[in-house]
Amino acid sequence: MSGWEAAGVVILPIPYEATTSWGTGTREGPAAIIEASRYIEWYDEELDREPYEVGVCTLPSIDLGTAGPEPAIARLRALYDDLLEAAGDRFVIGLGGEHSISSAPATAWVDRLDGNLTILQFDAHTDLRDRHHDSPWNHACVMRRVLEYRADGGNAADIVAVGIRALTLEERDVIRERGIEVVFAHEMRRPGWVGRAVEALGENVYITFDVDFFDPSLIPATGTPEPGGGSWWDAMDLLSRAFRERNVVGADIVELAPRPGGEASAFTAAKLAYKMIGFRSEQA
Amino acid sequence: MSGWEAAGVVILPIPYEATTSWGTGTREGPAAIIEASRYIEWYDEELDREPYEVGVCTLPSIDLGTAGPEPAIARLRALYDDLLEAAGDRFVIGLGGEHSISSAPATAWVDRLDGNLTILQFDAHTDLRDRHHDSPWNHACVMRRVLEYRADGGNAADIVAVGIRALTLEERDVIRERGIEVVFAHEMRRPGWVGRAVEALGENVYITFDVDFFDPSLIPATGTPEPGGGSWWDAMDLLSRAFRERNVVGADIVELAPRPGGEASAFTAAKLAYKMIGFRSEQA
Amino acid sequence: MSGWEAAGVVILPIPYEATTSWGTGTREGPAAIIEASRYIEWYDEELDREPYEVGVCTLPSIDLGTAGPEPAIARLRALYDDLLEAAGDRFVIGLGGEHSISSAPATAWVDRLDGNLTILQFDAHTDLRDRHHDSPWNHACVMRRVLEYRADGGNAADIVAVGIRALTLEERDVIRERGIEVVFAHEMRRPGWVGRAVEALGENVYITFDVDFFDPSLIPATGTPEPGGGSWWDAMDLLSRAFRERNVVGADIVELAPRPGGEASAFTAAKLAYKMIGFRSEQA
Amino acid sequence: MSGWEAAGVVILPIPYEATTSWGTGTREGPAAIIEASRYIEWYDEELDREPYEVGVCTLPSIDLGTAGPEPAIARLRALYDDLLEAAGDRFVIGLGGEHSISSAPATAWVDRLDGNLTILQFDAHTDLRDRHHDSPWNHACVMRRVLEYRADGGNAADIVAVGIRALTLEERDVIRERGIEVVFAHEMRRPGWVGRAVEALGENVYITFDVDFFDPSLIPATGTPEPGGGSWWDAMDLLSRAFRERNVVGADIVELAPRPGGEASAFTAAKLAYKMIGFRSEQA
Amino acid sequence: MSGWEAAGVVILPIPYEATTSWGTGTREGPAAIIEASRYIEWYDEELDREPYEVGVCTLPSIDLGTAGPEPAIARLRALYDDLLEAAGDRFVIGLGGEHSISSAPATAWVDRLDGNLTILQFDAHTDLRDRHHDSPWNHACVMRRVLEYRADGGNAADIVAVGIRALTLEERDVIRERGIEVVFAHEMRRPGWVGRAVEALGENVYITFDVDFFDPSLIPATGTPEPGGGSWWDAMDLLSRAFRERNVVGADIVELAPRPGGEASAFTAAKLAYKMIGFRSEQA
Amino acid sequence: MSGWEAAGVVILPIPYEATTSWGTGTREGPAAIIEASRYIEWYDEELDREPYEVGVCTLPSIDLGTAGPEPAIARLRALYDDLLEAAGDRFVIGLGGEHSISSAPATAWVDRLDGNLTILQFDAHTDLRDRHHDSPWNHACVMRRVLEYRADGGNAADIVAVGIRALTLEERDVIRERGIEVVFAHEMRRPGWVGRAVEALGENVYITFDVDFFDPSLIPATGTPEPGGGSWWDAMDLLSRAFRERNVVGADIVELAPRPGGEASAFTAAKLAYKMIGFRSEQA
Repeated sequence: MSGWEAAGVVILPIPYEATTSWGTGTREGPAAIIEASRYIEWYDEELDREPYEVGVCTLPSIDLGTAGPEPAIARLRALYDDLLEAAGDRFVIGLGGEHSISSAPATAWVDRLDGNLTILQFDAHTDLRDRHHDSPWNHACVMRRVLEYRADGGNAADIVAVGIRALTLEERDVIRERGIEVVFAHEMRRPGWVGRAVEALGENVYITFDVDFFDPSLIPATGTPEPGGGSWWDAMDLLSRAFRERNVVGADIVELAPRPGGEASAFTAAKLAYKMIGFRSEQA
Repeated sequence: MSGWEAAGVVILPIPYEATTSWGTGTREGPAAIIEASRYIEWYDEELDREPYEVGVCTLPSIDLGTAGPEPAIARLRALYDDLLEAAGDRFVIGLGGEHSISSAPATAWVDRLDGNLTILQFDAHTDLRDRHHDSPWNHACVMRRVLEYRADGGNAADIVAVGIRALTLEERDVIRERGIEVVFAHEMRRPGWVGRAVEALGENVYITFDVDFFDPSLIPATGTPEPGGGSWWDAMDLLSRAFRERNVVGADIVELAPRPGGEASAFTAAKLAYKMIGFRSEQA
Repeated sequence: MSGWEAAGVVILPIPYEATTSWGTGTREGPAAIIEASRYIEWYDEELDREPYEVGVCTLPSIDLGTAGPEPAIARLRALYDDLLEAAGDRFVIGLGGEHSISSAPATAWVDRLDGNLTILQFDAHTDLRDRHHDSPWNHACVMRRVLEYRADGGNAADIVAVGIRALTLEERDVIRERGIEVVFAHEMRRPGWVGRAVEALGENVYITFDVDFFDPSLIPATGTPEPGGGSWWDAMDLLSRAFRERNVVGADIVELAPRPGGEASAFTAAKLAYKMIGFRSEQA
Repeated sequence: MSGWEAAGVVILPIPYEATTSWGTGTREGPAAIIEASRYIEWYDEELDREPYEVGVCTLPSIDLGTAGPEPAIARLRALYDDLLEAAGDRFVIGLGGEHSISSAPATAWVDRLDGNLTILQFDAHTDLRDRHHDSPWNHACVMRRVLEYRADGGNAADIVAVGIRALTLEERDVIRERGIEVVFAHEMRRPGWVGRAVEALGENVYITFDVDFFDPSLIPATGTPEPGGGSWWDAMDLLSRAFRERNVVGADIVELAPRPGGEASAFTAAKLAYKMIGFRSEQA
Repeated sequence: MSGWEAAGVVILPIPYEATTSWGTGTREGPAAIIEASRYIEWYDEELDREPYEVGVCTLPSIDLGTAGPEPAIARLRALYDDLLEAAGDRFVIGLGGEHSISSAPATAWVDRLDGNLTILQFDAHTDLRDRHHDSPWNHACVMRRVLEYRADGGNAADIVAVGIRALTLEERDVIRERGIEVVFAHEMRRPGWVGRAVEALGENVYITFDVDFFDPSLIPATGTPEPGGGSWWDAMDLLSRAFRERNVVGADIVELAPRPGGEASAFTAAKLAYKMIGFRSEQA
Repeated sequence: MSGWEAAGVVILPIPYEATTSWGTGTREGPAAIIEASRYIEWYDEELDREPYEVGVCTLPSIDLGTAGPEPAIARLRALYDDLLEAAGDRFVIGLGGEHSISSAPATAWVDRLDGNLTILQFDAHTDLRDRHHDSPWNHACVMRRVLEYRADGGNAADIVAVGIRALTLEERDVIRERGIEVVFAHEMRRPGWVGRAVEALGENVYITFDVDFFDPSLIPATGTPEPGGGSWWDAMDLLSRAFRERNVVGADIVELAPRPGGEASAFTAAKLAYKMIGFRSEQA
């Protein structure tokens, strides 16, 4: 809608998919979200303003090649370094693609903030495996990559994960050893979880939003849907507080896998992005 | 199920679609609802009776031609005038088709009741635009057309809209200037909204039910789904009170856009119609 | 995952479909559930253990032939008699297929326990018709067949049905005459229904779970979806208490009708089975 | 389009499906064909006339119940006896449903013509198995049932089968022993096969047309598609000669299994029926 | 691929749909064709060159509003007048959308060439109705509108139609009265039809290509598929000769109605456009 | 169907997909082909025998990991070396997956036969690019990898490619420089092409069959369908002669991308494999 100069928000489509497990199609996610976004009304009745006025610039899609996950993520990291440098105050929202892309912006922000960063992860899965399906760069390992980044030689990021309802014993042990704050999905049935999550956030926050955080009734169009997930309002409650009470530096929305007849899923992801833009515009 | 003579309820299929924005297919809505209705059980366990005994007569589909929106709506209005005259006490439920058809029955009832009418609108969108996509008869303008009908020269209808979560600045201003009662979707998270809506209704009520009132988890098969919508029980609570506490004169159900594998959406719309028949049968 | 010897749980695929009404495809249900189960994480964060360690043996699919419903169900009953005899303490979960298959395991357990059995039925429909579509073995009659089994000459089973929201006058009368405990879907909006259901259960319980118990937002992929159904947590609450407080002897999950793009429904059914395995593993 | 009295052709929808092997959905075949037929132009440019003028009466769908294949086919046979008696000169086209229905009209005609009948079978499969999937009434056995009808005690029908490209050793042996005239699909690549088929026909002919005769490129929407099948013009060439040079007494079109997006298959089946009506109208 | 200045060919997307009969979705046609065109190889092995070098400029989509067919077509005509004036030697290919759009470029060329124009119509239907579905601007009337344009007061266009296999008596009479050259689909089974069609073309030719010319096996994704249609090579044979032996001034490709899983249809339409560009590049 | 010891043919499922361009889903290809194969009749009427008697052993699926294309292909090559060593006279048919897998068996055979090998490629595309999408191991480069294997230091394989109708200038130049025998799709319209292809084959032949060789009317379910492709009988004619007149050492079938409703495509691929087994069984 807007050019780079006038933009307060930048959308970066990253249609990358190479390591998905079951349902395929996250490669089509960014295009579906952008197509759906054309039908969003600009006025936000909760904020009583038109957040698009902050200026939204959608960049061309990033092609990460077919040489394999490791060079792909490395290329994305380099690209993010350049982009964040150029962006200044502009808020960048990456649109995946599979979840493995998130390690690029997350670690870029770790470096920029010298480790003074919390990753707020909306997700059904912890994605804390060390390796999966023969690769450390699999989408099921993305948070482990972030966790280990600078873990030995510098300040690492903290993780606050909400909506979790699928993990392995190995991942449970990582959570306990590393003191990761997890709000399990079954804990979200009782009040107070939003406050607990917000309190665990540090000063600076990067948000990675895997759409399988949502219950599959709302977004069935994702690779590994898990019942018992979060509602639209659960996401709104936590997002609005995180943006109001912390310094949110960037975000991504990943793992939408469009399906025929699945426009509702794409639209929900698009509106999620637009609500983030709205919350961000209140910050500014 | 029943002939005209014995019918207390008349179903009018209006498979009209000419101005939709994104998802297409509302033209197939009436046929899908009627097909699905064959699998509804006749007994209603909440009412402890069989509402179909009131007699339900399904009319042939209305063909509004391809000459354009304005003559199509004019034709439908004329048809409704004749039908309501013939129908007497019979309760007419129109099945769309896109939302623009609702201005025909709504304005027909405005005239029949000399403006002493409230439109109870279940919807995600206010549909209060003055023009859209080059036409004042676009589906996004239908409530504006109703609002302006006889607004200058006679008694106009009031509007009570529930479930709203997508509108423009222009529409917000219309709401404020005209004193339209709106229950936004985010307000439905707190108790009391049903009572507020019922109290805002006048003596006579026409119900227009855009199925995108519902959360897209329940009815994904519609043109512009919006997350954060109403639940089945939200609709039941308001409908049951409206029928019990006011004089509901007619209704329509619009914007179902059937999809392959989307039988659940069609069935839900069909059961919605049957619940209306049940509530109506309690009135009679 | 496991061989017969080491198994504590046995999965029996029964891809039988011959009498469905509307949506077709329950024949593909078992294969879809088993395919989906490959993507379930083995750790259960609510139980803090890996239930698969109990040992899960998946048997080959049962072919009930095309000679008609009566010989098909008779063959399944004979097969269940043999299987339960061989199984000993192993817990058998049947995967349908249409609901009519449930009379085979249910009546087998009636005999094994000399009538000292309650059937806990998760369902939108009571399935208590005497005949339907020209056959007493139609899926809409399955609970009637169970109810009448040994009703005259011995100890019959009780039925506790939850989630009911579609029935006929005839079925209402059966409920009243036979004192069947029914928790209607609209009663599940208020607290206390789980306790009422559990209290109505006898010592031994067989669970038949028709996936249309769930709201169609969660599982649209079933033959006759009905809005206003149970949530994931509703099912978890009642299942966990039933397994903890009673002796659950067996279970089946029926009426999943896979659809293209409907992986979320299949996954939910698979996770339902795995949660049962988990609850069972706590019993053992 | 026409009432019974004025009809020269009668369409009988038989949405029966109980024994299919792989792809399901033939139950939806008749409705899809009838829906598609609304878009056929009435003028036939090859005949230079409007065949519908012969009068076409579409009967209500036949419900064969869910008690099993044997009673279902028996009921259909009784129904056909009555219908043919009442029909007089009217030409009856049955619309399946699975192929097993064809034994009812075929054997009814065997009796009416005292065995002086050839069955002209368009099909990919010979359907000559003695039993299949535990039943002699399976769709894979339908021609065997016809072949054996009155084979011992009276005059049986001959069979001429065209398009065959999938059979078993057992069926090959039946073909050789019984002298069935088969035009294999690979023989249709060379000229002359139409003449050979026509010459093998007796005076009276009943046509059973399994749509999998066609190459799957033309009709993918069938249960067991086989590549290398007949083209539209192959069918037209043989049908036009059969109707011109023999006394065709009746016909059926079976095994269409509609799919989302498969309107072309349904339309092709509908036009096939209309071409038959045209050829028949030239006879009259 | 190219800017306006360097372009020898201009692509004009016209996603207009308002009067379709059965299958819907032609509105999505242009986007699907353009998406598919990204996967076409630029080299043409029959021409042994890369036709894209002529320069191809794709314009933004034209929005014809929702005010009805008559103003929509009028607006398109005005737009075409301006575009053709600006285009000079550039070859314009319109991408529909429904067939009714073709009257705009066709009549624009009639005026530009003072009636010295033949319309070469690839189509299953003659589209020569006077009115249809209450409108003279329905897609089933488009060639009648072209035929009557300047028929009384000036030089009208001739029509050569190929692939025809669905028409009405009324349309047959128009063909005969007006001397329209029609190659029926059944005539395309014999050699010589290409030559007959080419000989009937005048000096200047506008090509309107309804994709239902093709057999539905090749392009099932269209509104009213008709079996017995043309093959890919049929189209290539006639197109290559028309471009070589006549002055082709413009073209359109219409009635593609994309379906899920129907990428092959979209790709075929895209390659058809690219072959036209190739043939045109030989002319230049 | 058969164990390894008794097998004359071995089926190797290779569900690998990492570099596809457009349509996705080749990863599901092997499972769909194997599922479809259950419905193939074992008797082959052209050979008048049951080819399955040669013994067919289906191996478990190969998982090539997610570490990237280069290690994946290397792993597959190592696996093929072991498998071919163990297989002895058994004929191995690989089922892809994307086309890039074919370089593993092809180069394994180059080594085993010291370069005395012709690759017979059924394909729409030459796949002779040097690099594509940032990788030399992309599916569009597979034949280039084969071509260059041992090209400098030893005896390389020849390539005979049939059905080609999409290539780049670069690939045309490679064809000319390296003397690759190509039968373009447009050349297949004239007789004699089968003989030309067979004559170009050396003594030993490895067959790689990309299903996009077929016209998209027959197999729409592939990544980049191209109109104007080969028919079923085209494939049969060349395959039967190749097996009869040369020593065919192995084969693969690749690029099937299953779609909902696309059972016909999967079945055609399965029957293609079975016809190869039949032709092979004649050799033995």
